[in-house]
Amino acid sequence: MNADLPKAVPTAAGTCPPRRAVVLLSGGLDSATVAAWAIDGGWEVTALSIDYTQRHRCELDAARAVALHLGIVDHVVLPVDLAAFGGSALVDPTIPVPRDRPEEWLAREIPVTYVPARNTVFLALALALAEARGAEAIALGVNSIDYSGYPDCRPEYLDAFRRLAILATKAGVEGRPIEILAPLVELTKAQIVTLGRDLGLDPGLTTSCYDPTPEGRPCGHCDSCRLRAAGFAAAGVVDPRATGG
Amino acid sequence: MNADLPKAVPTAAGTCPPRRAVVLLSGGLDSATVAAWAIDGGWEVTALSIDYTQRHRCELDAARAVALHLGIVDHVVLPVDLAAFGGSALVDPTIPVPRDRPEEWLAREIPVTYVPARNTVFLALALALAEARGAEAIALGVNSIDYSGYPDCRPEYLDAFRRLAILATKAGVEGRPIEILAPLVELTKAQIVTLGRDLGLDPGLTTSCYDPTPEGRPCGHCDSCRLRAAGFAAAGVVDPRATGG
Repeated sequence: MNADLPKAVPTAAGTCPPRRAVVLLSGGLDSATVAAWAIDGGWEVTALSIDYTQRHRCELDAARAVALHLGIVDHVVLPVDLAAFGGSALVDPTIPVPRDRPEEWLAREIPVTYVPARNTVFLALALALAEARGAEAIALGVNSIDYSGYPDCRPEYLDAFRRLAILATKAGVEGRPIEILAPLVELTKAQIVTLGRDLGLDPGLTTSCYDPTPEGRPCGHCDSCRLRAAGFAAAGVVDPRATGG
Repeated sequence: MNADLPKAVPTAAGTCPPRRAVVLLSGGLDSATVAAWAIDGGWEVTALSIDYTQRHRCELDAARAVALHLGIVDHVVLPVDLAAFGGSALVDPTIPVPRDRPEEWLAREIPVTYVPARNTVFLALALALAEARGAEAIALGVNSIDYSGYPDCRPEYLDAFRRLAILATKAGVEGRPIEILAPLVELTKAQIVTLGRDLGLDPGLTTSCYDPTPEGRPCGHCDSCRLRAAGFAAAGVVDPRATGG
């Protein structure tokens, strides 16, 4: 593996009983890479996918395919209808998903695809599942380099959640705080593509598009499609899911 | 109103447009008192109740009755099946709810009625709803005096969530952090009973029992029933929902 890429630290390899981690698995490239990374590091993985009535619900099929591909047998798909709250293009079909945003806008302004407090909801649910399963860690694919400007993808946000997790849980109070692992947080999309390839992940199983066709084909124009395409191009890897691919 | 009891600070009275708060409304006495307190303080209230497949789901009927009683028209009841995770007597019917625990155990050990990370899940959802609704505050009825020893009811936990909420949201990043109001956190149960009475809340609409009969009558033996009974007794107020009442 490329020396620049993160290893699963803390490693869980060879521990007995095996250490368990809850991986937030959306079905996108980043979370699938984290799941492969955790397994490579020796963690027993429980995958958690949230059906939040997202516009791109086909990502849940991708999550199931990735779990199968990686041999994850404990995969929880939990419905939480964030569309009942609204407030985002990803859960409100009347708000268009921006197409072909200038690259200099990415990470500078928070776009309408921001789902209010989404990662806090997902991390809170992962924390609940981790404590219920006796897991020692949560791993997620947030990234603060090639991303769309979401506040809940930044290292300082993760640090605040780590502090909260210690105070919030029986495990934390009893001196066994649940770790929050975000191995991709400071990688470029190209590095994530390379890491996934090195881990043997089939990127054709993953989907990143916010606004796919009814058949689940990527639009090629949303922030997520464009970041993914740029990442594959920079890594020199062919994306089997690319538009027309 | 008794001078020892908290006023709705920051007050929202007379603001135009009215300031909105999301109140986590379980249907219990504490959250109903917070809803009445927020309305008394001039807040426009959106109530959020979570159907987490709790053993005492009849509390959702109580939440609906309280919302009606207080004139709250925006009441969201969101299903989030925490029973799929397990790990608590409140969501797993095979784990008995402790009966008649010695009083000295309350607040000293974390009981099996602790639901892993429950308040973090609820606050995260309230944060999402608050941001989607443009609300400026979340109010909840957590209490760290007469309570059952849950880690996610303590002032230091709430402070950690306040810090997280600033970093987690578009509102926070843009300098409009959503406030977390916990007016009961340092009140005794007797003070909460008195506050509710002074605010005109009908406590007979609320239910606190963890393990009610199929008809929704309180058991009288769980921690929650006993704390409630002691609070009413100390306040010198008759509880219309008491066993046999």
